[in-house]
Amino acid sequence: MRIVVDANVPAADACFGELGELIRLPGREIDAAALRDADVVVVRSITRIDEAVVDAAMSGKSRLRFVGTCTIGTDPVDTRALARHGVSFASAPGCNAEAVVDYVLSSLLTLAERQGWQLSERRVGIVGVGNVGERLRKRLAAMGIECLACDPPRAEAEGAEAGVPHFVDLDTLIDECDVLCLHTPLVREGPHATRHLFDAQRIARLEPGTVLLNAGRGDCVDGLALRQRLTGLGDISAVLDVWESEPKIDAALRDLVEIATPHIAGYSMDGKLRGSHQVYAALCRYLGLPARLTLDSLLPAPPVPRLVLDGGLEPEDALRRCLRAVYDVRRDHDSLYRESRQRGMAAGFDACRADYPPRRELATLEVELREGARELAPLLEGMGCRVD
Amino acid sequence: MRIVVDANVPAADACFGELGELIRLPGREIDAAALRDADVVVVRSITRIDEAVVDAAMSGKSRLRFVGTCTIGTDPVDTRALARHGVSFASAPGCNAEAVVDYVLSSLLTLAERQGWQLSERRVGIVGVGNVGERLRKRLAAMGIECLACDPPRAEAEGAEAGVPHFVDLDTLIDECDVLCLHTPLVREGPHATRHLFDAQRIARLEPGTVLLNAGRGDCVDGLALRQRLTGLGDISAVLDVWESEPKIDAALRDLVEIATPHIAGYSMDGKLRGSHQVYAALCRYLGLPARLTLDSLLPAPPVPRLVLDGGLEPEDALRRCLRAVYDVRRDHDSLYRESRQRGMAAGFDACRADYPPRRELATLEVELREGARELAPLLEGMGCRVD
Ligand SMILES: NC(=O)c1ccc[n+]([C@@H]2O[C@H](COP(=O)([O-])OP(=O)(O)OC[C@H]3O[C@@H](n4cnc5c(N)ncnc54)[C@H](O)[C@@H]3O)[C@@H](O)[C@H]2O)c1
Ligand SMILES: NC(=O)c1ccc[n+]([C@@H]2O[C@H](COP(=O)([O-])OP(=O)(O)OC[C@H]3O[C@@H](n4cnc5c(N)ncnc54)[C@H](O)[C@@H]3O)[C@@H](O)[C@H]2O)c1
Repeated sequence: MRIVVDANVPAADACFGELGELIRLPGREIDAAALRDADVVVVRSITRIDEAVVDAAMSGKSRLRFVGTCTIGTDPVDTRALARHGVSFASAPGCNAEAVVDYVLSSLLTLAERQGWQLSERRVGIVGVGNVGERLRKRLAAMGIECLACDPPRAEAEGAEAGVPHFVDLDTLIDECDVLCLHTPLVREGPHATRHLFDAQRIARLEPGTVLLNAGRGDCVDGLALRQRLTGLGDISAVLDVWESEPKIDAALRDLVEIATPHIAGYSMDGKLRGSHQVYAALCRYLGLPARLTLDSLLPAPPVPRLVLDGGLEPEDALRRCLRAVYDVRRDHDSLYRESRQRGMAAGFDACRADYPPRRELATLEVELREGARELAPLLEGMGCRVD
Repeated sequence: MRIVVDANVPAADACFGELGELIRLPGREIDAAALRDADVVVVRSITRIDEAVVDAAMSGKSRLRFVGTCTIGTDPVDTRALARHGVSFASAPGCNAEAVVDYVLSSLLTLAERQGWQLSERRVGIVGVGNVGERLRKRLAAMGIECLACDPPRAEAEGAEAGVPHFVDLDTLIDECDVLCLHTPLVREGPHATRHLFDAQRIARLEPGTVLLNAGRGDCVDGLALRQRLTGLGDISAVLDVWESEPKIDAALRDLVEIATPHIAGYSMDGKLRGSHQVYAALCRYLGLPARLTLDSLLPAPPVPRLVLDGGLEPEDALRRCLRAVYDVRRDHDSLYRESRQRGMAAGFDACRADYPPRRELATLEVELREGARELAPLLEGMGCRVD
């Protein structure tokens, strides 16, 4: 079996090496011809497999039976065209969702410290409650934080079922929450379109003191309107990981937001390897083979594997210290600022992403709780940490 | 024996309670009358014991035999007047020096991360090599960092001795170093005056890229000249913990320096208790009693007592993580900014100091090194951490 793999897929050897002959190609070189000669193709988001590519790949004699993408995005792959030709497809939904939640908590806990408030005093609104939003909701619940959720597509689909968590509409959420977290995909049209979901009107409506965080898609927020609110009244705070017209983002807006990062919220090493592992598992299922490889066996030991806590810290402060021992969003904010000033915006933005330093997820941290800190166990377990 | 103690002296009960009858007074109420009625007086920096107070206290029948200040500063106490009346005096030199070194390293490692350089590539100049500067020199040496030292009073006193570390003059240090750390006291006149030691001329002479850190006394740097350099060329970075005309410092300068803090570099809980303990030890010596109480027994367990490191971090990054698990200067920078905007400069500056959150020293952290991180042992031991 010939398996063509994007050379940037991490742990490709471990995951796919025993299933067939591995051919590594740069993502951009995985074209119709490469697809035609492969039984299995494993890509990341850089390879475009649109209808034309699929049709060309499947014309004449093609070996192609399975395409996998080790990322959450299915955008660059025309999955219908694949299905039409009977080619199986797998992606890695949610593979980096925990990383995004780490990003959100690092950002909110940093803002809280900086501005002198407690996250637990706030009510958080989550817009888009999919893989990311749902995990964020679980972690905020473990922190005892009240949440409202807005996800009209889910509300429609699940609305009638019993036991389904309550959803509110966006304007109710905006009115009742003072921290707003966007985790929606870009949907250009239809009843649930998300382009400029936060438009000038909604941005004008935000109460002073509101925190607006976007780690979904840049186009979900009207950047110009946000910039005007931040310049004019300057009475709300913004955290942006995603931007309109990346990588050439609005420098003025970058300077006005409290935390500005170059679309790296999901960039954990764990997330990337989870992506490879999810496609590996799907391929094993497709081939009818047992998936023997565990995700843990792919992951190197974390550089900060364990922390001991004793009494003396407020729960939120304890969590902040644990999280920062693993990941601190300020590093990424600082590097976007530095690189975009040194190299120009687009090149700086891309450089930060290309040279992103290895980052682990909070759940890799084991926490030992001494006498005075025992009551922190549920909180830290709720973060996915092993606690003893 | 009557012992009058400033009510803000920490661990006063433990330190002085068994030596006599303890009378706690607010520091400002410890006047000549209070002194006259006490055998021993223990103060912090708020109580002024000048010549007039001493003379008044010693006129007529006075019991006073010993005055101790649990801080490094002897300024508010006229030690000569005390000596003239045969009253013993003790202070706590160096009690908070390790805290200042933590502050310096936290600041420099933060700047290095932010600006994308390594501290180990830099040459550090230390101006004022007393209790703080000497400890800074030792820790930088443990990091393998090249240092130059400038301390004309020490150079004069020790210059001829063998084995004395080399000192250079200030202008040589400025020319040869790219990180400059000031740890000089304020000396208004004489051959080694330090007022505006960094004057307009010296500030103009700093190479682009230089970092200037002042944690000695605010008046050692000409703030206006620094502000002009930062506004105009903006090509050097400043870290200021001490300022001219505290607490009403120059807001424009605050906004221009990379790290701006309200004279808290030395504010560790360890430092404060060490101050009490040093005076306790001196009083025991004076009384001819054994000093049975250890400093460790006064200190509560730290909230983050232990961290485990494994491979994967550069030494400097490993140190940064350890230090930040204990102390992160950005918290103090953020709170000066916040409080001074909310309350006005002077009130905000003072509020940060008055409500300073408990802070521990790096040396309270135990570090366990796993296989991949073993080579970090000398570095972390050099920081005073217990390593296993
Ligand atoms: N910043 C990053 O690094 C990063 C990382 C991961 C994901 N993301 C982005 O975050 C978004 C969410 O990711 P995910 O993995 O949770 O996706 P998902 O598909 O699992 O969830 C998206 C959710 O948004 C909901 N939604 C759709 N339209 C909506 C609307 N108009 N209003 C409210 N909710 C709506 C959907 O019903 C769904 O539940 C995606 O756009 C993804 O690209 C960004
Ligand atoms: N920012 C803070 O929170 C904080 C904390 C502790 C100390 N300090 C200040 O830092 C300074 C140093 O503290 P320390 O405990 O090391 O004091 P110290 O007296 O032990 O050392 C001061 C050193 O400066 C030297 N010096 C004097 N004049 C000099 C000159 N013109 N050029 C170079 N060196 C000169 C002295 O010879 C001495 O070695 C003091 O002013 C102290 O008030 C500030």
